[in-house]
Amino acid sequence: MARERISKAREGNEIEFSRIVAFSDGVFSIAITLLVLGLTIEKHLDSGELASELWDQRENLLAYAISFAVIGRFWLVHHRFFSDVTGFDGRLIGLNLLYLGFIVLIPFSSQVLGEYGGQTPAVALYATNLAAVVMIGMYMAADARRAGLTSIDDAAHRESRLRSMYIGGIFLISIPVAFVAPGITTLLWIALFFDPAGRIFSRRA
Amino acid sequence: MARERISKAREGNEIEFSRIVAFSDGVFSIAITLLVLGLTIEKHLDSGELASELWDQRENLLAYAISFAVIGRFWLVHHRFFSDVTGFDGRLIGLNLLYLGFIVLIPFSSQVLGEYGGQTPAVALYATNLAAVVMIGMYMAADARRAGLTSIDDAAHRESRLRSMYIGGIFLISIPVAFVAPGITTLLWIALFFDPAGRIFSRRA
Amino acid sequence: MARERISKAREGNEIEFSRIVAFSDGVFSIAITLLVLGLTIEKHLDSGELASELWDQRENLLAYAISFAVIGRFWLVHHRFFSDVTGFDGRLIGLNLLYLGFIVLIPFSSQVLGEYGGQTPAVALYATNLAAVVMIGMYMAADARRAGLTSIDDAAHRESRLRSMYIGGIFLISIPVAFVAPGITTLLWIALFFDPAGRIFSRRA
Amino acid sequence: MARERISKAREGNEIEFSRIVAFSDGVFSIAITLLVLGLTIEKHLDSGELASELWDQRENLLAYAISFAVIGRFWLVHHRFFSDVTGFDGRLIGLNLLYLGFIVLIPFSSQVLGEYGGQTPAVALYATNLAAVVMIGMYMAADARRAGLTSIDDAAHRESRLRSMYIGGIFLISIPVAFVAPGITTLLWIALFFDPAGRIFSRRA
Repeated sequence: MARERISKAREGNEIEFSRIVAFSDGVFSIAITLLVLGLTIEKHLDSGELASELWDQRENLLAYAISFAVIGRFWLVHHRFFSDVTGFDGRLIGLNLLYLGFIVLIPFSSQVLGEYGGQTPAVALYATNLAAVVMIGMYMAADARRAGLTSIDDAAHRESRLRSMYIGGIFLISIPVAFVAPGITTLLWIALFFDPAGRIFSRRA
Repeated sequence: MARERISKAREGNEIEFSRIVAFSDGVFSIAITLLVLGLTIEKHLDSGELASELWDQRENLLAYAISFAVIGRFWLVHHRFFSDVTGFDGRLIGLNLLYLGFIVLIPFSSQVLGEYGGQTPAVALYATNLAAVVMIGMYMAADARRAGLTSIDDAAHRESRLRSMYIGGIFLISIPVAFVAPGITTLLWIALFFDPAGRIFSRRA
Repeated sequence: MARERISKAREGNEIEFSRIVAFSDGVFSIAITLLVLGLTIEKHLDSGELASELWDQRENLLAYAISFAVIGRFWLVHHRFFSDVTGFDGRLIGLNLLYLGFIVLIPFSSQVLGEYGGQTPAVALYATNLAAVVMIGMYMAADARRAGLTSIDDAAHRESRLRSMYIGGIFLISIPVAFVAPGITTLLWIALFFDPAGRIFSRRA
Repeated sequence: MARERISKAREGNEIEFSRIVAFSDGVFSIAITLLVLGLTIEKHLDSGELASELWDQRENLLAYAISFAVIGRFWLVHHRFFSDVTGFDGRLIGLNLLYLGFIVLIPFSSQVLGEYGGQTPAVALYATNLAAVVMIGMYMAADARRAGLTSIDDAAHRESRLRSMYIGGIFLISIPVAFVAPGITTLLWIALFFDPAGRIFSRRA
């Protein structure tokens, strides 16, 4: 099965390359914006009911905030990964599509989480979705590196892999936790905001 | 009716050309992201109902996965086609719009398929939609080639046409099959993942 | 009130200019894709009901097709207009936003038309929406020309204005017609596909 | 906590920089287009009911128009701000994401406002959302300036800050007003269209 991979250099194919990136950015920006559809309001309420209905949206709003931060973060990671990419082939494009397929699922998982935040199936679904994103992302990065399609240096690759393992690990761990104590997992996810290097917003642009 | 076609070269009109491509990419990325709206969850369920409701989404999830792969693949084909385009005229733009018109229908057909996977009308609708995309795509490619708007070489054009015929053929065949044995057609579509050249992810970028 | 207009040249501000165009393209591509949300299917139907439910969607599908063609055409016109633009100021950006505000309304008007195709209010709403788009577009083109922000030559400007007047005229006429004979207006709109120069797809790219 | 900020120059990283801008534009254009989802129509009405149902949409339509103008204006401000940006770091990207997180909420707040225009919670929600956008935007601009990431001159920065304070101030004031006289606040917002320099469409492009 070991077939040779024929890739195109980024240089000289800038238009094609930027289409891949633009398509990915489009998907990211639509997925992050569709999160707002998880917030809905019933019609024909009076003022008191409206206030309590809006108050009832606080879990949906929390799910919105978490998912916005999460997709935003994945976009950043994707952004950094592709800024180091020097070539591409069908396999990288295919893996990128697979990756995006799980990004696009997040608005659904997030809506379920917002509606059923304290319940096992909702938490397990959300954690599985995000763990899948992280793991596919790691595989894509490792695969591109192996195929010589990226110019990332060893230290940066290791740092990026460590960070992905940290994030992915939290989501993987939270799957069994969801079956025992679903209420805890959301607290667990707060650890996401303290990554090992201790920065919410990395200093690397 | 044989009127002369006045086209613009891509070179020297890069901004206009890239707007066409960017518009197409925008439509593709939105259509692929709207697939997630086919997944919905009812409100006010208890934990057991939630688990079974999510489990009931498995057909919707399958439809999501198939349609994501299908739109992603069409985007790739579109991407490759336009990377060889060297000029454009109103007709190419018009055909591209017609093509996109059927791409945008996919989230609807996919939602129907997810909801009514085993039933004849749903399968026939889906197969018709996708067969239309493939046939318009083939016509657009042949027409652009005839008008000298593409630099694709003979071998690549023939390969691309063969592949389109293979994919379009499967969908066309599945229309009558849907009336006899709708449950089979989904299996038939799995053949899509084994194209004649035997690669899920082509080696050509 | 006659204040001097301070504009920026397109040349030397390509990034800013392309952001305006990219934003417009984004809005166009999202609006055209949201048209698919006008097509919906009820849940829990049996096979016979599903077939008749899909058959009942034929008016929605017609509204979809008309609106897709209409937005696609407006995008083309917008595309051509901006390809001749050589400078921009706050007023052009503002008018462009106003124009886009009516483009974004089309998915709503189209949905109403699909649901209530033969009824006066639906037809009047749709015709008003599209007439507004055409008239704002004409005003924007004339205003940019007056301010010296476009390099379009006299003949092309006149042709473009004539075409807009033809399209806008049909929609304006169809508003009163909608009150007398709403069923006729859709037929009237077929005239849109035969513009004075007699081409569905113009030869000008 | 005073850590050094490591930024990248815009020059030499144009592709990365333009991805940030393109992502933001994508989010803006989707958020502004999703406003149309606040307009919905019930099915199976007769002609008289349809007319009155459409008439009942006038508050939703007003909310649509206000929010379209508001998001369009924010986009303009964002557009101007980034046209002066000369470098970027993780913090600017992070703040920009936070800013976009509140932009994306607008379609929801707007829908609530359209549905419940005269009621305190709806008006307070809307005003809070928009005040948050303005304040985060001001903070982002000040922060980028302090970090030397923008080439904006003193006069332009002061003008932009004054304008933001004016807009943000109106929304902040309208929050308590919403509790006393929610019906007035919409009138208050009309003041937005008369900014201190007295121009709806600024002369600066």
